[in-house]
Order: sequence, then structure tokens, then C-alpha cells
Amino acid sequence: MNFLFASNIYQERRNKLSAAFSTGIALFLSNNESPANYPSNTYHYRQDSNFLYFFGLSLPNIVGVIDFEQKKSLLFGNDFEIDDIIWMGDQPKLSDLAVEVAVDEVRPLSELSSFLKNKQVHFTPPYRADNKIELTRLLKKNIEELIPSTELIKRIVALREIKSPEEIEQMENANEIGVQMHTFVMKHCKPGVSERELFGIAEGIALSMGSGPSFPIILSQNGQTLHNHNHNLILEKGRLLVMDAGAENVMNYCSDHTRTMPVSGTFSPMQKEIYETVYQANMAGIANCKPGIQNIENHKLAVTVLTEGLQRIGLMKGNIEESVALGAHALFMPHGLGHQIGLDVHDMEDLGENFVGYDETIQRSKIFGWGSLRMAKTLKPGHIISVEPGIYFIPHLIDIWKNEKRFEAFINYDKVETYRNFGGIRIEDCVLITEEGHRVLGTHLPKSVSEIENILQS
Amino acid sequence: MNFLFASNIYQERRNKLSAAFSTGIALFLSNNESPANYPSNTYHYRQDSNFLYFFGLSLPNIVGVIDFEQKKSLLFGNDFEIDDIIWMGDQPKLSDLAVEVAVDEVRPLSELSSFLKNKQVHFTPPYRADNKIELTRLLKKNIEELIPSTELIKRIVALREIKSPEEIEQMENANEIGVQMHTFVMKHCKPGVSERELFGIAEGIALSMGSGPSFPIILSQNGQTLHNHNHNLILEKGRLLVMDAGAENVMNYCSDHTRTMPVSGTFSPMQKEIYETVYQANMAGIANCKPGIQNIENHKLAVTVLTEGLQRIGLMKGNIEESVALGAHALFMPHGLGHQIGLDVHDMEDLGENFVGYDETIQRSKIFGWGSLRMAKTLKPGHIISVEPGIYFIPHLIDIWKNEKRFEAFINYDKVETYRNFGGIRIEDCVLITEEGHRVLGTHLPKSVSEIENILQS
Repeated sequence: MNFLFASNIYQERRNKLSAAFSTGIALFLSNNESPANYPSNTYHYRQDSNFLYFFGLSLPNIVGVIDFEQKKSLLFGNDFEIDDIIWMGDQPKLSDLAVEVAVDEVRPLSELSSFLKNKQVHFTPPYRADNKIELTRLLKKNIEELIPSTELIKRIVALREIKSPEEIEQMENANEIGVQMHTFVMKHCKPGVSERELFGIAEGIALSMGSGPSFPIILSQNGQTLHNHNHNLILEKGRLLVMDAGAENVMNYCSDHTRTMPVSGTFSPMQKEIYETVYQANMAGIANCKPGIQNIENHKLAVTVLTEGLQRIGLMKGNIEESVALGAHALFMPHGLGHQIGLDVHDMEDLGENFVGYDETIQRSKIFGWGSLRMAKTLKPGHIISVEPGIYFIPHLIDIWKNEKRFEAFINYDKVETYRNFGGIRIEDCVLITEEGHRVLGTHLPKSVSEIENILQS
Repeated sequence: MNFLFASNIYQERRNKLSAAFSTGIALFLSNNESPANYPSNTYHYRQDSNFLYFFGLSLPNIVGVIDFEQKKSLLFGNDFEIDDIIWMGDQPKLSDLAVEVAVDEVRPLSELSSFLKNKQVHFTPPYRADNKIELTRLLKKNIEELIPSTELIKRIVALREIKSPEEIEQMENANEIGVQMHTFVMKHCKPGVSERELFGIAEGIALSMGSGPSFPIILSQNGQTLHNHNHNLILEKGRLLVMDAGAENVMNYCSDHTRTMPVSGTFSPMQKEIYETVYQANMAGIANCKPGIQNIENHKLAVTVLTEGLQRIGLMKGNIEESVALGAHALFMPHGLGHQIGLDVHDMEDLGENFVGYDETIQRSKIFGWGSLRMAKTLKPGHIISVEPGIYFIPHLIDIWKNEKRFEAFINYDKVETYRNFGGIRIEDCVLITEEGHRVLGTHLPKSVSEIENILQS
């Protein structure tokens, strides 16, 4: 079953893309089924997001073409055989599906190869190995010779990064599912419960209400490990639980929230101080979201607020502006403030991070911490971004920096040592840029110290 | 985190394999992370089952080698860099992991290519596209020239198909998780609940208690569609819900149960008659499981019981033995009675179904229905098989057979027409073959009409 927008929406998207080109075609291979442990035991099917954007259909083994010269769209694919129908039930005909997404022409897959002959073929970077192999066959090139079209990438980013009203509605829906996932975990976060149990049910909620999680759920008491996908610990009094998780709704629009909660039900004074600092950075980063602001300015604002807080606590010192510019705060927050989000949780990451978050006006920094910022460029109405500051105490990183005496003018390493086993805190929401400013997506999810403590104790 | 058996178990498995060969090496590529919608957004990691069996480690980007000439085992892989540790936390060294699985030697991945030069390399059929590409690089061959080793396949099947006591313990654990999944659904199967909701939470339970489902969950009121992965319907009074689902436990051992339940809480008389017939076939198929019996005999017994029941109901007629031999029952049950199960839900299906379910003493039938039987050969102690008879009313198939007047001597098509919208019923358990006979794995899951009705109404 396909969940689709009205057919003219897909047509308009293709027309807008087409308008930017006068020659050649754009080729969009669908994602295929992806095997786990043998060919027919496959993961949950996930269509390619560019395919979803221009052709809507969430189906494997089809190919979409936008012909920039003939100004028309085509779908190449085969109808199901009777044998498939016995095992898989009634299947719609591709020609009927094409009508649903206003595609002009349907042809059998066997005609694709000759159709492509002598054409200038634009394609996006293939990220699945089977589609790499398929492209080598279709384009008669080696894998190393498959060069994606920069022009196509840039035009797609320009279209996909501005979310339309019907997309924003889907994003709200995805955020609602995310809120349900987090609310469940907050209500069941108690000493003795296993991380795996909470992780599993959170993923189950995402599947129950949509298409599943938008990325592998992070749910760990070792919040200092930024990409921690182990869930083998039992929740312990006194520790913090970080949950970074989002949902994909039935139309594959994504959400992404992070909350950090004290397993005991109340934050210790030490936890509370750090939490308040991250909370203020999150609130400041969100408050500053509006059209015309470069998102790197929001990053700067948030890490400045973090630095101020860390100075109050006694973990940092010295000139704040200088400290931020040099990246001293990156000991505590090595990552960026956020990323775009839409049909992918890191939206369009398959097209290349620098095309999505940077442009001719702003280049990626080479400074540790600053260089991890995914979305730096000027915000426009219709952008949706995550705002996710954090403070972490990462023993390995502390050891390296301390041994190198890095930023001794800004960091009180003796005090940092007393936080060595603290863990980490991150707080994240998704923010839509509007004409007037911004709107946080989804129902409000408990975020302040008192809100978190209240729901944990409820 | 790896969940492992004692190290000598892996060593013994490799030694047993090695004993069958005097020349060459066996090459086992790990499965790698598999991208969903961009390179770093990956599905739940699933190691290759042959790799798990011989090398235990559930990790990507490593290669296991069993050297049949030097009679030793090697792991090729790279340790984590400090950057990885910052993002992913402390990681064990490969040399330490090698000790856990008693591997003799660890080398960096960069040495693999030269190690393989001029060696006779046995490998199993690659089913992931990235590993196909990797094999073409390592072996300097085209994809079409990658010929798996039949000798290796046959030896692996001979080892893996006989489950050891510690494997049976894991299989019991996987079946317990499956029982929890099914029990939850039985308790929440009510008119008005959505299929998606039940499917999602069932998957969540599998993730909470183990590694997730052992295959995409089938949970549908359209049970006549054998591989139905849509969950878009709302449960309706009067309909039957088929749930075919299993779990993988933390060590990746699999379960597989099917139950069929009336959404109303009680079976209608028409549903009850068909259900009882399938139930009798399931019980007869299980009762007959013992060493020395060909599983095709169990299939024959089960479809004979089905045919007898269908005759009593008036849907079939004529000489039963002839009807079964010709495959007239396959209108109602086009699939086989079952398959082997272990580290894969269709165990070792990557190695080729015919190597797993057939041997020199028995060839796959070409008759529709009979030909779908996955496991036909003689049962031995340590085999674990599914027993899963079913009766379905598949409108497309009925139309084709009726138009062809196929088996008119055995099928009462007029009566069949009155069942056109019936749906389908399947009942499945996993059965271990023991020295004495058999044992159904897992706690008893409600199965008889009264047991099912009782739990639905509880």
C-alpha cells in the first residue's frame, strides 16, 4: 500500500526540477529489498527518499526517469506475475500506480537499458551496493567511474529543503509519534528496568504508529558515548538515561527528539547544574531560529551559553568569545547543533552533507567541534532543523586533551576529573523555520527539570 | 557486545569442518552494516549465520578463515581508531575477541588480499551485494564467475543441521520470546484494534527480549495471502487473524510460530470446522516426528489429514490417496509442511534449499504444492523443524483451477465458492527431533479451539 500526496504534487516537483535543466535525463533507481541473513529474509522495506519525493511510490524494482529534453516522466517496471499474486495478494498494476503520481509513461524494465543509450544521465550518489552494481550494468561503467551529478544534487537540495504545507503536516505527525515513544520511556524509566526493554517497546511504538524508527534508537546510560547502540544495561539509581530517538510516519517523514532523564526520578544537584546549562543552550538555540540567520550563528550562540554555564560550574574559565572561537567547548560538545530533517532524519545525507548544510557563502570549519556542524547555512521559511546541544564527559577525549594540555587557559582539568563518570546530557527538538520565526514541531515533550521530574515520578 | 558460547565450541566446529578437507581454505566474510536511506543510517546489524556458527562474533568488517592445509583459523580485521572510540565508546581489541572464540591468529584486513593469492578458496553463496563486490575484488573475478563451493555447503549443512545441547537451549529461549509475542497479540486481538498496532508491539517485544523478529512478521486478516506484510486493516468482528511470527534471541537463534484466531473471540461454526482440520493435521504432523522418518512422509500424513477433513466438510471428494499423490489438496495448501530452523528461520537458506531439505535419497517433487516442501529428508536427533499445515481460500488460485477444471474429481468447486471470502488458517510449532521422538519447543502456546477462545476472551 502506498501513502501518497495528490498526484499534482509529484508532477510539480518534477516540473520544478526539469525547469533547471535543458539536456539529459535524471535517473532514479528505487531501493530494493535488502537481505538480512539470506536472500528472501529482508529488512523492512525503505524506499529511497529522492524516489519518494519525485515519484511517491514505496515499491522496489522500479526506475523513475525525468526526461529534461522531452519534458516528461517515465516509470520502468514490471507488473506482478500470477505466482506473486498467489503468495502476495492482489497487486495494483504499475500503470494504475503511475496515474496516482501523474507519471506520463510506463515501460517494462527490459527497455531501460536501450532507453539510456547515448543519453546524458544525471543520478544521485548510490549508497546501496546492489544499486551500484545495477548502475554499472545500466551505464556500462565500473563502480569507480560512477560519478553523480553535482548539478542534480544541488537542484534536489534546493527543492527538498523547503518543506511544503503538506510535508509540514507529515512532519508534525512524525513528531507526534516521537513524542509517544519518549513519553512511554519517561513513564517506565525506573531502576531495575533494562535498557533493552525500553528500547524495544519504543521501537514497537514507532512501528505501531508509523513505519518504525527514523534511525537506530540511542537509549543508554552511557550518554557520553554519542553513537551508543548497546542496550545491555539495567537502569541504576543515580545514573542518567539519554534517549535520542525518532519515528518515520507512514509517508516516511521523520522526527528526532533527545531527552535525558535521571533514573532515580530526580536530578542530583550536580546533574541538575549541567542539565540546566544544556537546557538553556537548547532554548537559546531555538529562540534564535528565524529566516535570514545563518544556523552557524545558532550553533555559536548555543555553545556560548554552554560555555557560560560551564564557567559558572567551574569547569571552564577565561575569555568566552575566544574560548568559543577556538573550540575549547568541544571537549564537552564535540558535535554540531543540528541538521536538516525531512524524508531522512539527516535530510538528504545521501546527497552529501556539504551540499545540504553549506553553500557558496559558508564553508565547513576545520576546527574540532565546529567542523561537525551539519547545517550551517542561512535559514529560510520551510527549513526544518534539529536543535540538539549537549554536554558530555568522554573519558578518552579528556585524557587526550589533558595529556596534550590543550586549552589549559579555558578548561579546569582538575574539576573535569571529578565529572569523569558523569555520563552525558543532550536535549533535542525539531524546529520549523516560519516567515515570522519558528515553531517547535509536535506536542510539547517534557523538557525542563521540573517537567522531566514530574513525568518520571508520575 | 557479543553473546558467545564457550570458546572450545567454535574451535570444535571449525575442526570438524576442517577434518573434511585436505586442501584450500574456507573464507567467511562478515555481514556489514546495511544502509536504509543513506550510508550511515543502517538497519539493525545482522551477522551472517555461517560466520556466527564458526566464529561467533557479531561484528562487521571482519573476515574469518579456516585454513584446511595449515589446520588453523584466522581473523582478518582492524582495531578501532581513537575517533571511533569517542563516538562509539570503548571497543574490545580484535586480538581479545579472537581469544573468546579460540581463533589462532589475527591479521589486519590489508593482508587478506595477498593471503588469498594462489589459494584454493571455498566460500558460501554471497547474498549481500556489498559482499559480492568484495569477493570480486578479493578473488579477482567477475560477479558471474563467483562459484560457491558445493563441498563446503554440504559439509556446513551436515554440521549446522544437528543442533547441540547448548544450541537447543538457545532455541528454547527464542521460542519463549515467540510465545510472549503471540500471547500479547492473542490478549489484544479485539474488533477495532489495528493490525499495525499489534504488529508493532509484537516486534517491540521481540526487540525487548532478544534481537528482534526472525523474519518480517505476518499479521493479517487476509491470511489467504501467504506472504502478507501489510498491516493496514482494522480488526473486524467475524474475521480471522493469522499471525506468523518468530523471534531471534540475543545469540540469533530463531523461533517461528503461527496461530490463527477469531477476532470476535469465538470461531463461527464454519471457521471451527476448518480450524479443527488444520489443528488435526498439525498434531498428526508433530506426533509422527521421530528419527528415521522422512519428513516428506510427515507432509504426506498432514495433507492426508487435511484432505480427510476437507472431504468431511464437503470441499473435497474422491480417493484420498490418489488425491494427495496428485496434489489436489494444494488448492487449499500450496506450501510445504515445514522447514529446518536454527540460526536462520529458514535454516541455511543462503546455502540453497535443496542442500538443506533434500539429499541423494530424495529429490524435490515437480508437482504443485509438493514442490514447495522445504524439508523432505530423513529426520535425525538434533534436527529442528517447523510443522505448519494450513488451509487457505485464495480467490486467484480458485479461479485458475476452476477455469482449467483441474482436479474436478477431487474438488467440489461449487462448495469452494461459498468459502471464497473465508481467508486462511495456519497453525505452526517448532519441533526438536530427539533420540526417543520429538519435543515441541517453548512453553505451550494456546492452540486448540477452546484454548484460543479462552485466551481471547480473557
